[in-house]
Amino acid sequence: MRAISLIRRWMEDAGLRTWVDQMGNVHGRVDGANANAEALLIGSHMDTVVDAGMFDGSLGIVSAISALKAMHVNGKLEKLKRPVEVIAFSDEEGVRFQTTFLGSGAIAGILPATTLEISDKRDVMIKDFLKENSIDITEESLLKLKYDPKSVWGYVEVHIEQGPVLEQVGFPLGVVKGIAGQTRLKVTVRGSQGHAGTVPMSMRQDPMAAAAEQIVVLESLCKHPEEYLSYDAHCSDSTVKSLSSSLVCTVGEISTWPSASNVIPGQVTYTVDIRAIDDLGREAVIYDLSKQIYQICDKRSVSCIIEHKHDAGAVICDSDLSSQLKSATYSALKKMEGDIQDEVPTLMSGAGHDAMAISHLTKVGMLFVRCRGGISHSPQEHVLDNDVWAAGLATLSFLENLS
Amino acid sequence: MRAISLIRRWMEDAGLRTWVDQMGNVHGRVDGANANAEALLIGSHMDTVVDAGMFDGSLGIVSAISALKAMHVNGKLEKLKRPVEVIAFSDEEGVRFQTTFLGSGAIAGILPATTLEISDKRDVMIKDFLKENSIDITEESLLKLKYDPKSVWGYVEVHIEQGPVLEQVGFPLGVVKGIAGQTRLKVTVRGSQGHAGTVPMSMRQDPMAAAAEQIVVLESLCKHPEEYLSYDAHCSDSTVKSLSSSLVCTVGEISTWPSASNVIPGQVTYTVDIRAIDDLGREAVIYDLSKQIYQICDKRSVSCIIEHKHDAGAVICDSDLSSQLKSATYSALKKMEGDIQDEVPTLMSGAGHDAMAISHLTKVGMLFVRCRGGISHSPQEHVLDNDVWAAGLATLSFLENLS
Repeated sequence: MRAISLIRRWMEDAGLRTWVDQMGNVHGRVDGANANAEALLIGSHMDTVVDAGMFDGSLGIVSAISALKAMHVNGKLEKLKRPVEVIAFSDEEGVRFQTTFLGSGAIAGILPATTLEISDKRDVMIKDFLKENSIDITEESLLKLKYDPKSVWGYVEVHIEQGPVLEQVGFPLGVVKGIAGQTRLKVTVRGSQGHAGTVPMSMRQDPMAAAAEQIVVLESLCKHPEEYLSYDAHCSDSTVKSLSSSLVCTVGEISTWPSASNVIPGQVTYTVDIRAIDDLGREAVIYDLSKQIYQICDKRSVSCIIEHKHDAGAVICDSDLSSQLKSATYSALKKMEGDIQDEVPTLMSGAGHDAMAISHLTKVGMLFVRCRGGISHSPQEHVLDNDVWAAGLATLSFLENLS
Repeated sequence: MRAISLIRRWMEDAGLRTWVDQMGNVHGRVDGANANAEALLIGSHMDTVVDAGMFDGSLGIVSAISALKAMHVNGKLEKLKRPVEVIAFSDEEGVRFQTTFLGSGAIAGILPATTLEISDKRDVMIKDFLKENSIDITEESLLKLKYDPKSVWGYVEVHIEQGPVLEQVGFPLGVVKGIAGQTRLKVTVRGSQGHAGTVPMSMRQDPMAAAAEQIVVLESLCKHPEEYLSYDAHCSDSTVKSLSSSLVCTVGEISTWPSASNVIPGQVTYTVDIRAIDDLGREAVIYDLSKQIYQICDKRSVSCIIEHKHDAGAVICDSDLSSQLKSATYSALKKMEGDIQDEVPTLMSGAGHDAMAISHLTKVGMLFVRCRGGISHSPQEHVLDNDVWAAGLATLSFLENLS
């Protein structure tokens, strides 16, 4: 609630008309020269995770407001070719209610009405929490928060990369070509529990050894999909090429049962997180991986269960918005550094963003800002002053050239 | 305490002179024809782990008492060539006080005096628990429990195998050639924590992938040590041969940090339990394994720490006792089945037994009894009636032929 009033003050200071909607999103709008034209939405989220850095989400809100303020000061707001609306989304992370995109999901109209009944750990429901803060929301008013697609032209989001790519290529900004689709698997391997000392190696059905072999295969497959996937109808040449550059696979959790150093586990469970910009490619990888997991289990006479816990399709960024963001980046860096030799990098987003939710409403474009350390959501997540400056200038250039 | 009085009654019923020592061990002794000769000790432990089967430890006590009772009934006790003392050891497992061999360790004189101060989860010390049960023990009287090695001839223990070997070879009894030495390692792999979506495969320093590769190598090495170990001074041909048949390696526990499905772990920790009958061979395996673990870490730019948490040398069973146990087994099975074609199997014990503690006092021999299911310490741990019978008959034959 304190962020809402602070951001609202900044927006008003930038010459925007402001309001707070019933999901706690802060809006700041300027009509420009054509009040009835489709509006550009621009923004990011106000919230962040516990103990994260200060740039997550907020950098996208601040750079949009700052750019509009610069135009306000120079009397350019009224000349904007179409309405521009900054939105500071209320809850993207889902830290408190364990459900993501509460703010942008409401605007995109993808939240089920039952969302309002979701509770936090102390059994406080979303609607009750909002009421406590003087925001009355009903199922009906939630549905009304959805924007009419015909009223919207597109959505642009500036966000820190939260990854190491821009830092490695040495470039402050990058254009996002898309947000990866994601599959989350839970693999359970069951073998034969036994005493670590009494079962000879040749008589074991050890699920830990099987899981280790599977994780090694997973890594090879995801590093070099071109060596594993067959080029059939499901997996064209371009799919494999796109996979090679975007596919990432992670085992983040693993546990054994009964988990004692002197017991051959009876069961091992691990998670697999697979992301890629190409949905067909991701499916091909999951198909191939599953086949290999089962083969390893067969070979070792252990049993395997692969559960699909989560599936989300990729979002491809709009090519026009992307090329406008690219030009804006060039012009911003030219202003700062003079001559720009290198190509502006384009990269995939492996993490989810509000743009993912808003893509259900309108075309989207994203600009990533270089991030030091590359660790997402850590206190070390840091952006250099110069790169913050570049993000603001690029946003300004994009808005000034809005068609 | 209830087991103590029950076992004591059985011992007396078998014609033995009984007493309970200050560690709660129950003793039943018969002097035989030469009261001053060195005594044969025979027995196993009374306790077992929670929810285990009924044969652990107790089968060894019961078969010794039963055999002596049969001799008592037939008037043969007095003709025994040397004193025979059955000992039912009080606490082998360490379930309550988390320290093993309390009973046999006291007899062997390997318990430090501070043992008496060890507490259970409710802060009850061993000495206080004993006092509650009318057993007064002091540091001084603990030291006096140690037997004079000159008074002892040897120790024999009958125990269920708690492994699958005898079941697989289809033989009810097997002679134990030794108790494996054991090393317990804790391996910590530290990499670079990151978002599962934002760090490309080529830029990762993923400790989970490194650990998986190491666990695969560990399994190969332990399955086929002959293909890995070099035949130098530390590792003779016979060492490698003995390793090939006895080496077992287990990863029983593994954990990641921070343990979230969408985070590349910053750290992975796992345990390695390595056992072998040949101490030099076990050391060679640990040397080679450590080298390979560090190489994998170097190659992947992650860091590795290998900690030695526990080391215990192997115990080799006495060859004379073993051949007497072998003959006793033949004669028992001949009585039961008539003609015996197969060689009595000899096998390694991968688990610890009271014989391990007593080996510090005198030569030891062990006989394993076939166990169904092979799962140690589970309620499924089961022994067929016929095999119980075979164990008793073999013990009887061993005692009747005692030299």
